Amino acid sequence: MKKGVFITLEGLDGAGKTTQINLLAAKAQALGIATVTTREPGGTALGDAIRKILLDPSYKEMLPLTEAFLYAASRAQHVAEVIRPALAAGKLVICDRFYDSSLAYQAFGGGLAFEFVRYINEEAVKDCKPDCTFILDLEPRVGQARKGQMKADRIEQKALAFHERVREGFLQLAQKQPERITVLDATESPEAIFNAIWAKVAPLLGLSR
Amino acid sequence: MKKGVFITLEGLDGAGKTTQINLLAAKAQALGIATVTTREPGGTALGDAIRKILLDPSYKEMLPLTEAFLYAASRAQHVAEVIRPALAAGKLVICDRFYDSSLAYQAFGGGLAFEFVRYINEEAVKDCKPDCTFILDLEPRVGQARKGQMKADRIEQKALAFHERVREGFLQLAQKQPERITVLDATESPEAIFNAIWAKVAPLLGLSR
Repeated sequence: MKKGVFITLEGLDGAGKTTQINLLAAKAQALGIATVTTREPGGTALGDAIRKILLDPSYKEMLPLTEAFLYAASRAQHVAEVIRPALAAGKLVICDRFYDSSLAYQAFGGGLAFEFVRYINEEAVKDCKPDCTFILDLEPRVGQARKGQMKADRIEQKALAFHERVREGFLQLAQKQPERITVLDATESPEAIFNAIWAKVAPLLGLSR
Repeated sequence: MKKGVFITLEGLDGAGKTTQINLLAAKAQALGIATVTTREPGGTALGDAIRKILLDPSYKEMLPLTEAFLYAASRAQHVAEVIRPALAAGKLVICDRFYDSSLAYQAFGGGLAFEFVRYINEEAVKDCKPDCTFILDLEPRVGQARKGQMKADRIEQKALAFHERVREGFLQLAQKQPERITVLDATESPEAIFNAIWAKVAPLLGLSR
């Protein structure tokens, strides 16, 4: 039985999701709200083992289909072990990427059928869906430049055209579900972005802004 | 374009699949038939990394749903990288476990919906289906006794009732597809079992027995 609030942050690498998750968790905790921050792929011991495979640059031959199943595996375990119990306990759950990333990366980016990716992820999450999702929108070039100094993982090494399709996918998802998904300009200041996020999250937590 | 012959061996651990695969491959190779032997989960570098997760006894919390996605991931990669190219090159492919194992273990054994497991595996293999499948049928107690001296992996550690359901699942699959699936009594001598297998395989290879 879901009682907590489930927030997901989505967007290309380099969009600033981690910064916003940290700001949101700090604000909620300062207000005495029990908060769980987690991420995908991963979030469990088993999920972290799957994450290692997914991001390993040596698996250049990995098919989008294989990827889609691996993300779904990690997600099914994450929902059952971490997210659902935390929500049942009334906590605020903030997750770095969730099923919108699978739709954007494997369907729009990787070219898998949208309905196939949607179906396996519905099976993975069942009724455990985000109350509110923020897409930090950014040009792929800008995200890559921001991440430039770090060693790129397998997904980050994909061509710019791939990341353009992923971005377009995120924007289309937001158009389809405007009541759940909010698109934010990731080139704004972290403070401005956080204010926009908090304006949406505070009422869900029963707080005024 | 499929030109080769695709044989799968199924059954509980300890049923003697490896012995029969070795006999079949040796016989085919002695007759000059290009043969590939492979196994699931695994069969590729990526699949072997997934196999390691699936069999690791420390992941006791792994859900049947997570398992099903991991097997499908391994299978999708295996079909694309190994099985389909070998069949296209006209080879004999002999595989230790394939999608019937997912139906038997995750649907019948693990309690997942049959149609869900069937669907994700159809997506993983597409048109790449076995020409002929042998189920080495055995009471779970006997299989476990045969494997008794070895260290049990995560799947082998499951309760006897689980393995009873898996066995029943294999038998039901064989009833549904008698033209593809042959059930063999795994307590017969290896020679007798091999003769029964060869009687089915030889005609597929364009040979008399």
